[in-house]
This record gives sequence, C-alpha cells and structure tokens, in this order.
Amino acid sequence: SMAGGRTVVRMSFATAASEKVFARTDDFARRHNGSSTKNAVDDMLRTVGVSSFDQLIDETVPAAIRIHRSLGVGKALSESEALEKLESIMKKNSLLQNHIGMGYYGTRVPTTILRNILENPGWYTQYTPYQAESAQGRLESLLNFQTMVCDLTGMPIANASLLDEATAAAEAMSMSFDASRGKKKKFLVSDDVHPQSLAVIKTRAEGFGVEVISLHHSQFDYSGNDVCGVMMQYPATDGTVQDFSEQIKAAHAGGAKVVMASDLLALTLLKPPGELGADFVLGSAQRFGVPLGYGGPHAAFFATRDEFKRLMPGRIIGISRDAAGKPALRMALQTREQHIRRDKATSNICTAQALLANMAAMYGVYHGPEGLKKIATRTHQLAALFGKAASEMGYKVSAEAFFDTVKIDCGSSTEAGKLVAKCVEHGINVRPYGQHVTVAFDETHTKEQMAKLVGAFAAAAGKSAPSLDELAESVVDMVPFASSAFQRTSTFMTHRVFNSYHTEHELLRYLKRLENRDISLVHSMIPLGSCTMKLNSTSEMIPVTWPEVCMPHPFTPPEQLPGYAEFFADLEKDLADITGFHTVSLQPNSGAQGEYTGLSVIKKYHQSRGEGHRNICIIPTSAHGTNPATAAMLGMKIVPVGCDKVGNIDVRELRDKAEKHKNELAALMVTYPSTHGVFEESIKDVCQIIHDNGGQVYMDGANMNAQVGLCSPGEIGADVCHLNLHKTFCIPHGGGGPGMGPIGVAKQLAPFLPSHPVVPVVNSTAESAIGPVSAAPYGSSAILPISWMYIKMMGSEGLKEATEYAILNANYMAKRLEGAYPVLYKGAKGRSAHEFIIDLRPLKEKTGITETDVAKRMQDYGFHAPTMSWPVSGTLMIEPTESESKEELDRLCDTLLMIREEIRAVEDGRMDPVNNPLKHAPHTQSVVFSADWHKERAYSQELAAYPASWTKQSKFWPTTSRVDDVYGDRNLCACLGMDHYVEEEAKAAAA
Amino acid sequence: SMAGGRTVVRMSFATAASEKVFARTDDFARRHNGSSTKNAVDDMLRTVGVSSFDQLIDETVPAAIRIHRSLGVGKALSESEALEKLESIMKKNSLLQNHIGMGYYGTRVPTTILRNILENPGWYTQYTPYQAESAQGRLESLLNFQTMVCDLTGMPIANASLLDEATAAAEAMSMSFDASRGKKKKFLVSDDVHPQSLAVIKTRAEGFGVEVISLHHSQFDYSGNDVCGVMMQYPATDGTVQDFSEQIKAAHAGGAKVVMASDLLALTLLKPPGELGADFVLGSAQRFGVPLGYGGPHAAFFATRDEFKRLMPGRIIGISRDAAGKPALRMALQTREQHIRRDKATSNICTAQALLANMAAMYGVYHGPEGLKKIATRTHQLAALFGKAASEMGYKVSAEAFFDTVKIDCGSSTEAGKLVAKCVEHGINVRPYGQHVTVAFDETHTKEQMAKLVGAFAAAAGKSAPSLDELAESVVDMVPFASSAFQRTSTFMTHRVFNSYHTEHELLRYLKRLENRDISLVHSMIPLGSCTMKLNSTSEMIPVTWPEVCMPHPFTPPEQLPGYAEFFADLEKDLADITGFHTVSLQPNSGAQGEYTGLSVIKKYHQSRGEGHRNICIIPTSAHGTNPATAAMLGMKIVPVGCDKVGNIDVRELRDKAEKHKNELAALMVTYPSTHGVFEESIKDVCQIIHDNGGQVYMDGANMNAQVGLCSPGEIGADVCHLNLHKTFCIPHGGGGPGMGPIGVAKQLAPFLPSHPVVPVVNSTAESAIGPVSAAPYGSSAILPISWMYIKMMGSEGLKEATEYAILNANYMAKRLEGAYPVLYKGAKGRSAHEFIIDLRPLKEKTGITETDVAKRMQDYGFHAPTMSWPVSGTLMIEPTESESKEELDRLCDTLLMIREEIRAVEDGRMDPVNNPLKHAPHTQSVVFSADWHKERAYSQELAAYPASWTKQSKFWPTTSRVDDVYGDRNLCACLGMDHYVEEEAKAAAA
Repeated sequence: SMAGGRTVVRMSFATAASEKVFARTDDFARRHNGSSTKNAVDDMLRTVGVSSFDQLIDETVPAAIRIHRSLGVGKALSESEALEKLESIMKKNSLLQNHIGMGYYGTRVPTTILRNILENPGWYTQYTPYQAESAQGRLESLLNFQTMVCDLTGMPIANASLLDEATAAAEAMSMSFDASRGKKKKFLVSDDVHPQSLAVIKTRAEGFGVEVISLHHSQFDYSGNDVCGVMMQYPATDGTVQDFSEQIKAAHAGGAKVVMASDLLALTLLKPPGELGADFVLGSAQRFGVPLGYGGPHAAFFATRDEFKRLMPGRIIGISRDAAGKPALRMALQTREQHIRRDKATSNICTAQALLANMAAMYGVYHGPEGLKKIATRTHQLAALFGKAASEMGYKVSAEAFFDTVKIDCGSSTEAGKLVAKCVEHGINVRPYGQHVTVAFDETHTKEQMAKLVGAFAAAAGKSAPSLDELAESVVDMVPFASSAFQRTSTFMTHRVFNSYHTEHELLRYLKRLENRDISLVHSMIPLGSCTMKLNSTSEMIPVTWPEVCMPHPFTPPEQLPGYAEFFADLEKDLADITGFHTVSLQPNSGAQGEYTGLSVIKKYHQSRGEGHRNICIIPTSAHGTNPATAAMLGMKIVPVGCDKVGNIDVRELRDKAEKHKNELAALMVTYPSTHGVFEESIKDVCQIIHDNGGQVYMDGANMNAQVGLCSPGEIGADVCHLNLHKTFCIPHGGGGPGMGPIGVAKQLAPFLPSHPVVPVVNSTAESAIGPVSAAPYGSSAILPISWMYIKMMGSEGLKEATEYAILNANYMAKRLEGAYPVLYKGAKGRSAHEFIIDLRPLKEKTGITETDVAKRMQDYGFHAPTMSWPVSGTLMIEPTESESKEELDRLCDTLLMIREEIRAVEDGRMDPVNNPLKHAPHTQSVVFSADWHKERAYSQELAAYPASWTKQSKFWPTTSRVDDVYGDRNLCACLGMDHYVEEEAKAAAA
Repeated sequence: SMAGGRTVVRMSFATAASEKVFARTDDFARRHNGSSTKNAVDDMLRTVGVSSFDQLIDETVPAAIRIHRSLGVGKALSESEALEKLESIMKKNSLLQNHIGMGYYGTRVPTTILRNILENPGWYTQYTPYQAESAQGRLESLLNFQTMVCDLTGMPIANASLLDEATAAAEAMSMSFDASRGKKKKFLVSDDVHPQSLAVIKTRAEGFGVEVISLHHSQFDYSGNDVCGVMMQYPATDGTVQDFSEQIKAAHAGGAKVVMASDLLALTLLKPPGELGADFVLGSAQRFGVPLGYGGPHAAFFATRDEFKRLMPGRIIGISRDAAGKPALRMALQTREQHIRRDKATSNICTAQALLANMAAMYGVYHGPEGLKKIATRTHQLAALFGKAASEMGYKVSAEAFFDTVKIDCGSSTEAGKLVAKCVEHGINVRPYGQHVTVAFDETHTKEQMAKLVGAFAAAAGKSAPSLDELAESVVDMVPFASSAFQRTSTFMTHRVFNSYHTEHELLRYLKRLENRDISLVHSMIPLGSCTMKLNSTSEMIPVTWPEVCMPHPFTPPEQLPGYAEFFADLEKDLADITGFHTVSLQPNSGAQGEYTGLSVIKKYHQSRGEGHRNICIIPTSAHGTNPATAAMLGMKIVPVGCDKVGNIDVRELRDKAEKHKNELAALMVTYPSTHGVFEESIKDVCQIIHDNGGQVYMDGANMNAQVGLCSPGEIGADVCHLNLHKTFCIPHGGGGPGMGPIGVAKQLAPFLPSHPVVPVVNSTAESAIGPVSAAPYGSSAILPISWMYIKMMGSEGLKEATEYAILNANYMAKRLEGAYPVLYKGAKGRSAHEFIIDLRPLKEKTGITETDVAKRMQDYGFHAPTMSWPVSGTLMIEPTESESKEELDRLCDTLLMIREEIRAVEDGRMDPVNNPLKHAPHTQSVVFSADWHKERAYSQELAAYPASWTKQSKFWPTTSRVDDVYGDRNLCACLGMDHYVEEEAKAAAA
C-alpha cells in the first residue's frame, strides 16, 4: 500500500518462518542459564536419577500448586531488542533543569568511579562481606565511608549505610523510643524536616504505638515527660540554617534524644551536629557522587554517640585482628542483627547500600577535604548569587542563613504555584513550598543554567535579568557562614586516605587494589543459600546509567516522566503476573522493607474491617530472622510454630494455634519453598487454615527463584509476598546492597499499599494507604530496569526454564555431595527445591572440624562459602542458581569432596586435629611464605594454598588470616583514622 | 532584555569574579598530572637542584627554540564541560540505516565484551606484551585470535592483527614483491576488490616501484613473467562469490603469489581460501564484535603459508616455554621487526590492533563455531530474502552467488544514483556501484529495518512491497551454498576455548582471569622510554562508545555527519597549533603509518617540483628503527649520520653529507628531543643545513610529549612531523594497539596530504595527493575523541604544564638514580628531556647481570620494565610522564635502587652470580612455592617474591618464569590448538 508517496509495509502476524529468519541472534536465556549444552543437562539428569526435566519437576513441585498457565510476560526479547525497547520507553522522560532539593541534589559522578565501581562487575557482583578474609577491599572502603561520616558529623561512630534518609530517620525515632525503654511515647518532629522523612517516621511509629507530632521546634514541650526524642533538619527543608543549641539543651534536659538530619556537603562548612550535642545524626550521602536515579539507590548515613553503638541498626565495619595478629576488617556487632534479636527487634534492617556507600566514600577520597570545601563553597556562592538576583528583581528572599537553598516568599501558594509553572515553561523545576518557592543549588549547576534560571524568574516578574557577572563580584569573596555561630572550625578527613588519591592514576589504582582483594562473581560462583547469587548480566546493568534513568529527581512532577510511568506500570504488571497477585507496589527498597510493608498492609486491612485487635502473627521456627523482627516492629505478638521431624511445618500444631488464636489471628509469615529448601506439600492447607481463622498469609519471597513459572504465591493462597529483586530478579548484591523489595498483594489488600506525601503513587490510594515506607515514591527506581531487562529477555518460557535449571542444579549438587555429607530435608519424593542443606554436625562431633572451618577452607579453594549455620546451626546451605555451568557446579562439589577428605584425614588420625589446613584456613600469602612455616605447620604449603588444580592456574588469595570476631566486638573500632590502620598494616607487612 | 515573552540573559564577557564563581569543580589538569601538591613539586625541584620550574625548563629547552606564544587551543574545559561540548558536536551526526558494506558491517558487540574489554582500563591500558611473563592473559587471547583466523581461512599461520584490510592488502603486495626478490614488478588486482584496498596498494606500490594493474581476474596475464602477485576478493566488493580455482592455478603456474581478501563471517560457510590454494589471506575482523567507529579502529587479519611466516609483517604470538619448562606465550620472531631489518625492510609496521583483535577473538569465543554459523546463515538469508523482494518488485538482481550483499543493476549510474537518493530519503544508506546498487546485510538488521528497506525500494519502483512473511517462507530452509563448489565442508574452531565460554558467567570469568594475569596502568606506572604511557583518563574514553561516534560506517555520505566534520576540523586546528604546522592529516592510523605518510608527502613534493630524483634520506644512527624502514619502503637511499661523544647528532658530519648529496638530498629524518632524551641545541642549525641543501625535514613525533607548549616542530624548522596520539595525546596502548599517527605539514607540503577514493577528505587535494594510506578517510576516527578530550580538558596552559611536569619527573628520577646507575647523555646544562637512559653495561661487565635480568627482576617488584636496550644496547630508557605521582616515581626509583643493591651483593660475592633472584627473575607462585625451593635456590622465597614492602600489601604475580625466546622462535607455533596449550598447562600445574 502507498501512503503519502511512501510505501508502508504491513507487519502482518509473523509466521513461523518469518520469526525464524528474523530472530535476532543475541537471544539471552542461553547466556543466563549455565548449562547451555544438552550433554551437560543429560549428564545431570542422569546423576539426579530422572529421565527428563518434567520428571524432576513433577517430583519436586507438588502437583496441587503447579500452575498450568503460561506466564504472561510475553515472548523473550533478545538483548538488543530489550535494550531498544527500554530506551524507547525511557526516552519519553523529559530532563528539566533541577532545583528541587529536599535531600536530593545533582552531583557529578567522577567518571573513574562511575566506570570502575558502578559499572564494574568486580565491585557490583560482590556479596555482603560476611567472609571478611576475602572482602578486605570493600571493607576498607566502607570503613572510609564511616570515617568520613564521623568526621563530617562530628560523631564518634557511624554505620556503613542505611537505605535512605527517611528510613534512617525512622530508625532514629525507634532508637529514641527504645532508649526510653518504650516508656515515652511521643516523638516531636520539627515542621521544617523534609516531608518524606516525617511521613515515613509516622508510618513506622504507628507500629510501635509512638505518636509523632510535627510542630515548630520552638514549640517543643517536654513537660509531660513523655517525649522520647526530637528531630530537626540542619539545614532545614526550606534551606534555612538554624542554631539549635537551645533546643538541644532543652531536649536533653527534658529527657529526650536529639535526632538531627543533615547534609554532608553542608557539614564541610557548618559546625557539625556532634559539636552541638546531637545524639543521632543522619542524612543522605547521595550528593557525594551517586546519581539521583529518580529516588535511588543511594546510601543514607547514620552516626551516633558511643553509648548507642550497640543499638545502632545497619552494618558497622570494625577493625579487628586476624589469626596472625594483624589488623583486619570485618562487619562488627553482627549479634545485633535481627536474626538474633528476633521478636525483641526494633529494626529489621539487613540490606545496606554498600555499593553506593563505596561510591560516596570514593568521592570523598578523590576530592579530599579541600576539594569538598571548594564544592560546598561554590554551591553556596551560587545560591547566594541567585538570592541577590532574585532580590534585585523584586522577589522577597528569606533573610535567614542558608547553605544551598534559597527561599522566596510569593505571598500565597497560588502565586508560588504560578512561579513554579513559569519555571517549568522555561525548562526548570523548582519546589513549591506553601506560599514559598525554594530553589536549591548543587555542584552541577553552571553559568548557563543560572542564566536560564534567572531568566525564568525575570520573565515571571516581568523584569529584566541582572548581570550575572556583576552579581558574581558580590559573592566571589564570600566565606560561607564567616564568623557566624554556624561556621565550622574543626578539621575533618585529615586521614591519609582522604589526602592521597587525588589524581586519576592514584584513584584508579586504589580502586583496583581494593577490588582485587575481594571475591565476587567474576571469580567463581557464590553459592549462598537463600541469597540467589545469579548472573547480573551486563545488558541488564546498562540502562542503570542512562541519563533518562539515573538523572531525574524523585520529586519531579510525574507528567514530565511518562517513560518512567509506563515502565513502572509494565514492571508491576509482569511482577503481578509472575506472583499471581492483583497489584504490586515498587516502593519498598529492600527485602526487609518489603516484609514490613506487607505486614503493615495486613494490619491496616484488619483495622479497615474493624478488626484492629488482630495482632497475633504465627511464624514457623525455621523462618528468616527478619520475619519475627518485622512482626515485632508492628506491635504484633509472635506465636511460633515448630517443624516436624522432616523439617516441614507441623500442620497439626499450626491448626491448633490458629484455632486457638482465631479471634486475634492477624497473619502467618511463611517462606516458600521452605527455608529448608523444600516444597512442602501442605502449603495450600496451611494457607487455608490461616484464612479459615481470619488471618492473612504473608509469604516471604526469598525463595521465589524456585517458584517462577511453576507456581505462584498468589495461586498458592498467599495474600501478600515481597520479592527480593536482588535475588530472583538479577539486581546485583553490590557487596551488601542495593536491593529492592516490592510486594505483590491480593485484591483485598491493594487499597493499603504505600503512598507518598510529595508525589502521588499511581497504584496507591492515598486515603487508605499505610503511608510511605521509603523516601522515594518508587524506591530505588534506577535499578528496577535490571529486573525489567531480565524478565523481558527471558520471556515467559525462559523464566520458567530458569527455575527448572535452578532446581536441577541444586538436586545435581545434592546428589554429588550426599555420599560425603548428609543432605538435610527433602521433599516428599526425595527432591530438594533450588537449594539444600548439608549437615556438618556429625563430622564436627567426631573431629572438631566446624562449619566455620569448612567455610574458611573454601576460600583457599577460591570459593565463597555457602550460607553458614542458617537456618540450622552447624550446616551449610547451598543455592547454585540456574546461572552456573555444570563445570562450575562440579568445581564446587569437588572442593567440598576434597575438604571432606581433609576431614577424613583428621578423623583417621593422619592429620593433626588442630594443626591442619582446615583449622588454619584461610591461608594468606604472608602466612604461606613465612620463613617459619616448617617450624609451625604440620602440613605443606602446597596443600595450604594450592589444594586444587585450578588454584595453580588462577589463585584467589584471601588478604587476611581468619578474622577474630570476638576481639573485634570487644574492642569496637569503627572509624579510627585509616592512618593508624594503614600504618599498622605496613608495620605488619614489614615485620 | 525581553524577547518573545522570555527574558534573555546576555552572557557578557566573563569577569574574573564570574569565572571564579562559576568555574566547574571537575577541572582536569590536577587529575592528569601526578604531582598534585605543592610540597611534592618543591621536593622534586630541590632534588633536581633548581629553585623553580622556570629555571628547570630554561636549563632544559634551548632558548633558541622556545616559543613565546601561548598555545591556541583555548582555556581548559572541565571534564563535564568537555563531554557536553563534544556531545553537542557529535549529536549533529545522523545515523541512517546502513547497508553500505565494502568491508565494514554492523555488528552486535556483546555487552560483556564491550564493558569488560573496550571500556575496562585493566585491558585498554596494557602495553605491548614485550614482557611476556606479565602479559600471558592477552597473549592467550591474541593466540585465540590467530587460531580463529587460521581455522576460518584454512591457513597454517596468522598474525595477531594489522591495521586495516587495505594496509594488510598492501603488505601482501609487498610480500609478493619481496618473494620475487624484487624482480617482478607487476601486481594484478581484480577489479572487484574493494576500491580503498586497491588505492592503498597503489600508494604503497609506488614506493617500491611496483606497477599495480586493476582488471578483471579473467584477464590476468602472466606471459611477461613479471607478475609478482595477484589479488582477488572473496566474496567480491559487489557481493558476488566466485570460484577462483582456475585463477589460482594459473597464477601459481605463472609464478605469482595469490592474495585473497576475505570475510571471516562468510568463511564460516564458504570453502576457505587455504583450501583453494591462496598464499596470503587477509581482511577485516571488524564484524566480529568491533564497532564500525566511522572507520576504526578494528583489527585486520593476515594469514599465510608456512614458508612465508618469517617474512610476515606484524606481531605473531607463539607458544614457547619458560625457565621452568612450562608452556608460555610470547611475541615470536621479533627479529623480523623493522628495527632489525632497517633499510632492508619492506614494512615498517609496529602498532597492531591488539585491543580490537582481543574483542574479535572474544566474540569468537563467546559465539563459538555454531553461533558464528548461525549468524552467518541468518545474514545470508536476509540478503536472499531481500534479493527475492527486489526481484518481485521488478529490480534486476544479479544471478551470481552471494553471501551478504545483493547487487542490483539499475541500467545506468544515473538511475543507480536516484535509487541511492531515494533510500537516503527513507533514512537508509545503500552503495552506488557504477550502474549498480549494492545492498549489504549484517547481524544487526532486523525485521523492521528490512521492512523499511523494502518499503524504500517499493517506493522507488512505484510498486507495493511484497510480504516479508511470505518471502521468509522461501528462505527459511535455505542452506547457504548448499552442495555448491563454495560450500564449506571442513570444521573450524573445534578447540576447547571456542566451545567452553558460551554463557555470560563463563565468559566474564574467562575475561577476568586473563585480565588479572597482565600488568597494566591500573597496577603501576609503565615507564617506557619513547612510549609515553601516560594517564588514559576515563572521561577521555567515554565518547569512544557513544553511538554517534562508534556507529557510523566510514563511507557514510559526509553530509550526514556534520558532527564528525566539525570535530575533525577542530582537532586538526588544535594539532596544527600545537605542532606549529599549516595543515594536519588525520588519516594515518599508526605512528609508522604517519612516518610513511610524511615521507611520501616529501617525495611527492620533490616530484611536483621536477626533482623526483631526490632520493637520499639522512638518518642519524640513533633513530627509531621505523625511520630507515620507512625510507626504504619509499625507495630512498639511506645515508646515516653518527653522533658525537655526548650523543648528539654530529653536525659537522651532517653538513658534510648534506652538502655532498645536495643534488639528491630528499629528507632528513630526526627525532626531537633526541632518542637519547636530550634537547639538542643544534636542532635549528640541523634543519637549516637540510633546507640549504634542498631537503625537507621529517621530524619523528615520538618525543612530542617533551615539546608541547614549549617548542614546536614547525617553529623549530621541520616540514612534517607525525604525532603518536597514543603517546602524547592519551589514546591508550590497548596492549599493543590501536594507535593513531596523524601528521602535520608545512604549507608547501599540504597539497600532497592523503586523499581517499570513496569519501572526499576535507583538507586533501585529490589531484596532487599521494593517495590514501589507510582504508578509512580519517583513519581510526572513533578514538580521536580521546585526544580531543585531552587537549580541551588541559587547555593551552595545561598542556604546557604537563610538558613541564614530564620534564621535572624525568629529571627528578635521573637525579635519584644517578648515584647507582650512570645516566647517559644530557643536555648542554646537564638536564634530561622527558626521558633518560641508565647504563647497565658497567655492571654487566663486572657481575654478568644483564639489562634483561634487571627488567625481569622489576616484575617481582610489581613493575613493567622500561624500554630495554634501545636506543643503546645494554641500557634502560625511562620515561615517567607527567601523570605519575611523586610517590609512584619514588616507588620505581626505590625498586631500581634495591635492585642495584642486589647486584652489589653479586659484585661483593655475597650472592651467587647465577643462583640469585636477578638471574631467576621473574618468580611465579609455582616456583616460589615449590617444595624443592630450598634444595635449588641460594636465596630466600621472601626475597624472591616480596622484595619491597608494597609487594606484601599488594602483589602482582607474573604468570610464567622467564620465557625462552630462542626456543620459541626455533619452534614457532602460533596457532596450535589451545587445547594442547591448556592441557599442557594443566599437566604442568598438576605436576
């Protein structure tokens, strides 16, 4: 057909031939799944003892829950097709000049950091540094982060990142409440705190029964002796910098803790909160070189006084020592984590934002204190210049002190709205704030942008714009906060690490030195049970740093971002389809956040039906530690249910307890397949029992990788489930974060999904919602494309196949290992799900060789250990995922079998029970090369370091000997100057 | 002022205040130059013995040649400013759908290869693998490349890449000529060879006095016994696949060599040239995953028969053995290189395209033979489908066999032009070819693109477009070349390496294993004299992979690429300013190519003045080996000039020889500062003497890093100079390439600069030009942004400062080392230029410790050796560049000083003269950990492996013991199956 001189070719329904001829050759599933050859698969099926995939799946997944529909995510797109499609969607976003502020600022990501951390699998595929000996690189970087935060905030101790500023504020609230031993039930928030922080605090406070009162800090009143804490923002959300000395004194006198939200860049110039007397200081490190990403991921920082360090949520990196007596870094105080505190928890936090904290730390390393001050001063001068320009044009500019944000009084919110609209016309976003407009500046703003901004304001005022060059004269010599109460006089970041790597070569080599100390997926498989360390493919990662994805401010008016809107809707639809749910919320920005959100939604549902008294949460004893922690945070009473002797939920006990508590039953929290790695046959009955007794079923999505395409939480009978997108859906673990924890819910729960106080969330109902759980409306939006790409590139069939491969791989490994180590727990037909547990307790009893010895010894073979002692103490839980090749699975099996032989040597008395490679593992170069080796060791250097053939060809060396956990916790040292550490290390090395 | 309702802010001349306030904080020079602190600089000046930078430069650079102008490249742009500016330029390029073909094809770069090789400093900052023990990673990958080429071409030996297909063809021509011992002076080229290949052969042939005759291969005539070789293209430039069996027989019978240009993808389906009897097979490996890049860089391949292997140009990777008797890879037959053959050379090739050859090899590794066949089959089927569509619409489609390119007879070139224009209207480029139009297909073409193409042809014909789906039916089962004479029946790429890494995890880990075997700038400085291994910054690298930069086909109609045009003009202007020349040509795609081009231009200039008899080229004995090789390639007679006793050109001898040969004098080739690292005072006189005697001065630009901003070749008196952009202007060395070698010329030489047969080159005069020297009009265009970014980010002042730092760093190191090693050659005031030579001959005489021992020992300290035994045998030449910090310079000095103490121990008899760490260097893990160490070695393991404190903190391990060069050359093995190699290695490791 001809149309307007051009011929339009009709794209009819593709025939089979057409599909075949035109099929692109960069199809993805065969790159993602490890066993790409039929031979390998046949071998594995034979070993497992089945004749086909179908037989294996039939024997693994209970028939009652199998879905017989095809997933609805469509045919697989090839890598290039998916990239093209996503690009065409995201290109619809408009990127306006941004002056919104509110805790999110433009930043120049140093390109060396961008390419060598954020875009480098050597960094982003690392796991959380539980195996400290092979993780000293990022541990050093995270210690740098803590040190930087301590220095800038003036506090003695900081953690290595929380999820975002708002959740960090909520953590401070709950710590304040905890510090009052739950007695003081009011928490006062200054009315110039960022609205998203206030809202998240409120959501979270409800669970604890804490009343959050927002008012001006001059009105704070402690007379009732019922205030556990107060919170101020410094600088405030409207940009003003205020002297809180009096408020802090008053709060302390009133028995309340003082929480200050702050800004790291401002703190290079401002007197630090620690010097003002704050108890908790928190904020976002985003503007230290982490892209805005339409809300995340970024690292929040959190610092506190020494007395609260053992209550502090999140991960703390501490300096300990190793078995050779040398300094060594590790995650300190792990006993604080929720899996220990369980139902006494006030936080369920697991995931940190390690990758982003590393970026922020390196930004500090690269710029150093002087560079940061220069950036801060320039930012302040731009704000000052704009303030003057606005004044000259007749705007009423706030006379209060400010750092980077100028406040203009428009007289009414209508007038403010008009000014905002005029700016949008000019391609600029500023923030409406009641009758005010605020205009925030950051290091990215240029002269051209200032001219455009001033031009927009001039147009709005009908004035001509003043000369920027003349205005520059008036600010060029301005020393920010000179001789005011706010001026910072203390030094910071004086440590060597912040004053050594200021050239690109030095930075690059530092980055590479650290990277090469850390084991990651670029070296070998990381078989972490329940953590699904699968392939994080490059094509999935590429969109993360597209400007249209990573540049938007999270509070950009949604109409400017139709691309993101379309993308969210599409991803939500696919996730709903995969989980069998009605609606999905993308807001929770970690798995634990997802749990919290899911359980909150259930609570709110009961309240909406006048059954707010339902507060019993049944949790199997085998559950993830976050489950009881989450329930506790929502004020629920936890009723445990045990397992039968084969590890399955004791259904009889469950029924008894559900019936007993049927009037108060709120929810069941259950993981499926179970944390024991088994598809329990009873799961549908279990759900039915809960429903029959008035409860809702919360399914923990940690093991979703065993379900996709074969069954679904919704169809099994769950009412809500969170998804760890950083497990099942390919977001990399980033050395301990970021993650994302969206939830899917059944229809009756949809009205309660999270809302947002600044930006309306599309599938949320503001009136009935639980409120927001994260600072940004869609959580860490910028990493969602990773999951989208994965889903689209696999397609309905590919997703299901991946699950089948994951199950095959687990069963294959279990089969290969079961002769050497008992495999605990199996399904009705003797099959594991996608992971399995090997039991080391019998060997330990016989030989004294512990699960830790085995885990550490695996490092000598070049492997990261599986999950250790969870969910069963004295065991290892192995999850191979679908992405590993048979060769790699065999290498890991061989490792465990060789280690078994080493244990046998101890058993048989051929090896000393203590002086052996297991007890001394892992082995560093300095230990193996020690001149005293033969005096000290009863086994060979070769056995120590090169126990397997592949280690001779390519050896990964642990950096430290076994790290002493007890010493580290007893002598907690989490931001001592790196100089000290480096000197110690150098001394030790020279010794 | 108000304009159309909007206020326009006038950007007046910026005041000092305004510049300061608005200056961006990502200024670059302080990141590029290593000594970022005043303290460090002051320390260094003190050590050197001067009170200021000015004093040092005054004492280093002769006053007579100092320029007192500021460079004209403008003020420095910050990193973000430069990126924004370049983006705004390049966005002007239009990216039309490409079907041009002619040896350049769209390709899907596997994203894992893109990010982890091309965008990864661990790969791109590697140097050429002269130090094989710390380069086994890329050597293995390059051996994979050779193996793949051998397999696909059916030839027994291949090299590890040449610059492009056209220069590879020129090399084959000169080898053919050489094989006739210079007796047969005709070279016949089939008229369906790519025009750019023919043109480059012609340019090159002129130098040898070879006549190139283009005619149909059926007309080839050997009756005169004067044909040294013939060349055919398979498939031909018009797409046809022809059976050359008869031609090959005839050529051999006629005593001529047979050169076949071919296509690796086609060869997965076509009977390989080796089976047809070809002597030389060459082509481009670009479509194996290397972006088009508007012409480059890509790797050309070159394969030949065993008897020619020792004449083959370019680098050959061979399997040898190391001192421990294990297999080890190295660059074989280095004695063939031009620095040995000098004036007997037929090639001056140095730079390879290692980085791109690695990408192509990994593309082969990732796809494997079956994957490649699938891509080839799909490509063929698309072409076939289009051919059918065109036929159906009434086009006259060639009936001959084809692979990926369809030829349509339009009846006249006017009609062909109309069809091409109609396609452009539809956003599509096809190729006009006389009265034909050709349409090429590649793996990137999609159904949508096919529809658009067919639509365009339908529109041009006034027909409706046939259904693609129906057409697909007719090609879907097509087996390409089924049972024709062309069908490939032999297997290929059966080696394990091409059949193991087909999943992304396996590929990624393979890439990382190889990367981690190789020392690069991410580990430590690489102090190569005359190679200027400076910082290759990330911001410089980023534009290389922008679509607008890396996607265009080199023969895109220039009017579609105004961005590139503007960019070239700007870069040419800056380079002309820096060099003090009138015009710059960007076409030469390596330093040696630049030399060749420069000298060709001089030759042509003389010819244009009726002085074509001028053929004497004076070359100092200290020159780079490429200089005499280049002169020889142009048929010039080389007259050497010696040095005086302090290493400077003997001016008296020069004058005598110039005057003696004044009637035949063509040129002087001179390096400045000299290859001895000295700013010779006499340089202006030297130039004058040459000019006075009718010659032109060719300046070798290898040492340009010592001149930029302080003096310039043009102002010194040179008439032409090439620039190694991969030295002075920050293009990374890529493990042995790519490089770029533009030349600048004085006004009188400008008319002779290279032209191009397909695309007009803007600053070239086609009528007077020497012809093309590279396949693409602007050489390896896609890496030129690296140099542009560098120049813009440094600005006029920054560039000059960098030179000053480079000089300071060299003089500082020389000062620190001169007590331990004599520093050879200095300037008039005792200063080195940007590099210096330390003399090891006295120590060698006393102790038997050689320069090789020192070089290999440096690997144990974590350093790549400096340039060894060049330009003076028994010495090391050290060039620190400006990008290294004082700490790094000190670390290298400390290394050499510690090694000096080790030598002293031998001298003093404290260490055995043979059984010592110098003679046994470098030390691998397997050697150091050997159980027999104490039996065999008279020194400690610690001294062997951890001689310096930093090696204890971060140790780079050489992979093999010292590689046996003699054994490797005697037993040349350059593409034996990797299986063999891997097995050997495994056996060795297991032993």
